[in-house]
Amino acid sequence: MKLKVLAAALVAVAPSTAVFASEPIQPIRPAQEINLAQAELGKKLYFDPRLSKSGFISCNSCHNLSMGGSDNLRTSIGHNWQEGPINSPTVLNSSLSVAQFWDGRAADLKEQAGGPIANPGEMAFTHTLATSVLESIPGYVNEFKLVYGEDGIDIDKVTEAIAEFEKTLVTPNSRFDKWLLGDQNALSADEVAGYELFKNSGCVACHNGAAAGGTTFQKMGLVEPYQTDNPAEGRYAVTGKDADRFSFKVPTLRNVELTYPYFHDGAAWSLEEAVNTMGRIQLGKNFTPEENAQIVAFLKSMTGDQPSFAMPILPPSAANTPQPQPFD
Amino acid sequence: MKLKVLAAALVAVAPSTAVFASEPIQPIRPAQEINLAQAELGKKLYFDPRLSKSGFISCNSCHNLSMGGSDNLRTSIGHNWQEGPINSPTVLNSSLSVAQFWDGRAADLKEQAGGPIANPGEMAFTHTLATSVLESIPGYVNEFKLVYGEDGIDIDKVTEAIAEFEKTLVTPNSRFDKWLLGDQNALSADEVAGYELFKNSGCVACHNGAAAGGTTFQKMGLVEPYQTDNPAEGRYAVTGKDADRFSFKVPTLRNVELTYPYFHDGAAWSLEEAVNTMGRIQLGKNFTPEENAQIVAFLKSMTGDQPSFAMPILPPSAANTPQPQPFD
Ligand code: HEC
Ligand code: HEC
Ligand code: HEC
Ligand code: HEC
Ligand SMILES: [Ca+2]
Ligand SMILES: [Ca+2]
Repeated sequence: MKLKVLAAALVAVAPSTAVFASEPIQPIRPAQEINLAQAELGKKLYFDPRLSKSGFISCNSCHNLSMGGSDNLRTSIGHNWQEGPINSPTVLNSSLSVAQFWDGRAADLKEQAGGPIANPGEMAFTHTLATSVLESIPGYVNEFKLVYGEDGIDIDKVTEAIAEFEKTLVTPNSRFDKWLLGDQNALSADEVAGYELFKNSGCVACHNGAAAGGTTFQKMGLVEPYQTDNPAEGRYAVTGKDADRFSFKVPTLRNVELTYPYFHDGAAWSLEEAVNTMGRIQLGKNFTPEENAQIVAFLKSMTGDQPSFAMPILPPSAANTPQPQPFD
Repeated sequence: MKLKVLAAALVAVAPSTAVFASEPIQPIRPAQEINLAQAELGKKLYFDPRLSKSGFISCNSCHNLSMGGSDNLRTSIGHNWQEGPINSPTVLNSSLSVAQFWDGRAADLKEQAGGPIANPGEMAFTHTLATSVLESIPGYVNEFKLVYGEDGIDIDKVTEAIAEFEKTLVTPNSRFDKWLLGDQNALSADEVAGYELFKNSGCVACHNGAAAGGTTFQKMGLVEPYQTDNPAEGRYAVTGKDADRFSFKVPTLRNVELTYPYFHDGAAWSLEEAVNTMGRIQLGKNFTPEENAQIVAFLKSMTGDQPSFAMPILPPSAANTPQPQPFD
């Protein structure tokens, strides 16, 4: 069932001497080795609000693929309009991360996907109820059988399919990537200057790799404490180590133009503000307005091709499908 | 800017003597004379939660095009998780209706589209705030200018574009339509029998025209009163005439397989139940289980081609875009 998806022409023809070989940020590669049947099933599940207790909230509610894979809210709205604890990170390129969630408490996308379904503040369902809903829907029963070659639906298959779909959500082909691959005209002089500042100031110490982030956990407020009302303690919640207090997974800066508001508390609504804050509290640097504008221009050049696919059509429920319970 | 979209081959080649000429239900024709640029803009607006106060609810939240154009809830969930007053009707084929809403209080789709944005129980915004959000988004400013040939965004243009998009949401090519157009093999014997029952029992007195509904307002409970806790009074709310009390727009039965639960109060979760109720309270008829099954089979043959398009990518907000207010 595994299918080799050919790397896009651009990547394929890049000579081994391409600019990026020596750069701290690498071009994003198109999705590779996708199990297409699994991913198609996962796409349906990703958009299906019947995985939630209310029948109203799907993965796409909080990671809206029309809006850069997040919800553009300070913190999310969950079941019963509960105010979420933390900013919703983008699912775009999240397959490139070393771990999932701000504190890295899930090792990979498959492990992650089980979380929100059963989280009382998000989809407020249980794995058992979610799978029994799916098992009552003839269209899903057939599709799971086709994809997995056997009868039966369980949370393991559900999260595996969703994760496979999420692996397709990479965003290659940004102007910055074209530049990395050798197209000198892909960036303006200001954007190149911004990238130089980004490297020389030390941003790349944390924001590196293909996703320009997602490779390590780092203290938020290395040089100067970060002021926030948000009680999240970051990586400490996972390791229990004092040194990890207020350490968060470095977010990807791919498509960062689309993933406002910024930081785990969603406090910064503009890139200008986020860049200034980073300079100050992570590096002890105060950028001039011109420098700030150049870095912002560079960051915006990392907006890549957004996922483009036909909206999935979901198989209808049957008479015996458990009814959604939005109001109790 | 108007563009003639050619009728699909099937319709084009149908001889004037096609079966349907004498039938009470006509085949659905593909969308005609669509202003494509307007419809593309309207599609974005339809999917854009920034038309709501919370930044979380879009038209597609309650008229989900992955799920037959409704939300499959008894009554809708609106701003702040408010419980809606009435079942959300499908937007599929709604352009074919004589008027919009269960009580017909909006004359057409354009008039209708202004309603939910400013409805405190739905999107809870105002037209002024919604347009000021759009005016702050460079991508929209450009696209409105392109589409309308002039600067400026107002609610008139917003609702016109949404309505133009909704005109594309027709669902031709159901098996029943193929049968109407002369393909004898498109329906099973049971489905044809169901259609005969549907005609001979009198269902077509109300459910007729291309949408198999949407042509008139009719009393709910003509022969026997309909029992419900839902306080909606139907057409009476518009005309003030006693005779219109509990009269509702006859819903389309196109794609009715997908638009559960049924009736204005969303009380019936299965087509079996809805058909039995209709027979009893509208016609004084008790169908045998076999008859019921045949009518249901016929109704399911009216599921047409669902809208198929690439999920729109929305233009990002700018630093001066008013922030969503989900929690106050
Ligand atoms: C109610 C809002 C909400 C829903 C629904 C939701 N998420 Fe999330 N998601 C979040 C928030 C908030 C976080 C961050 C939580 C944290 O880090 O503690 C998150 C984190 C993630 C991450 C980790 C990304 C990263 O970079 O660390 C992934 C992947 C993800 N969600 C995918 C999904 C999938 C798949 C579903 C559906 C099965 C889903 N989400 C449903 C709000 C939501
Ligand atoms: C010492 C590590 C480190 C350095 C150096 C660093 N960052 Fe960050 N960056 C982080 C972490 C960790 C976060 C997430 C913090 C949080 O939300 O609590 C972050 C968040 C961001 C964000 C917000 C992303 C989002 O989606 O919320 C931007 C933008 C950003 N950094 C840009 C920069 C720039 C520009 C520089 C250089 C001036 C820089 N960073 C330097 C670790 C670092
Ligand atoms: C919170 C849920 C919700 C939202 C958001 C919502 N609707 Fe509706 N919609 C409904 C309900 C409920 C009705 C029926 C109301 C009535 O008839 O009194 C309805 C009725 C309609 C109808 C009439 C269909 C018919 O057959 O009569 C159309 C068309 C429609 N909505 C389109 C839209 C558009 C366009 C938007 C966004 C601008 C939108 N809706 C937003 C719930 C919603
Ligand atoms: C006298 C008019 C009339 C007749 C006759 C009639 N209907 Fe209806 N039908 C309506 C009205 C009005 C509604 C919506 C009532 C409501 O929701 O309050 C409706 C609703 C329905 C629904 C639910 C649709 C939805 O989306 O909620 C179905 C299914 C249905 N009718 C099928 C039938 C069948 C089958 C027959 C024949 C046995 C029939 N109807 C006869 C007027 C009629
Ligand atoms: Ca964010
Ligand atoms: Ca319904």
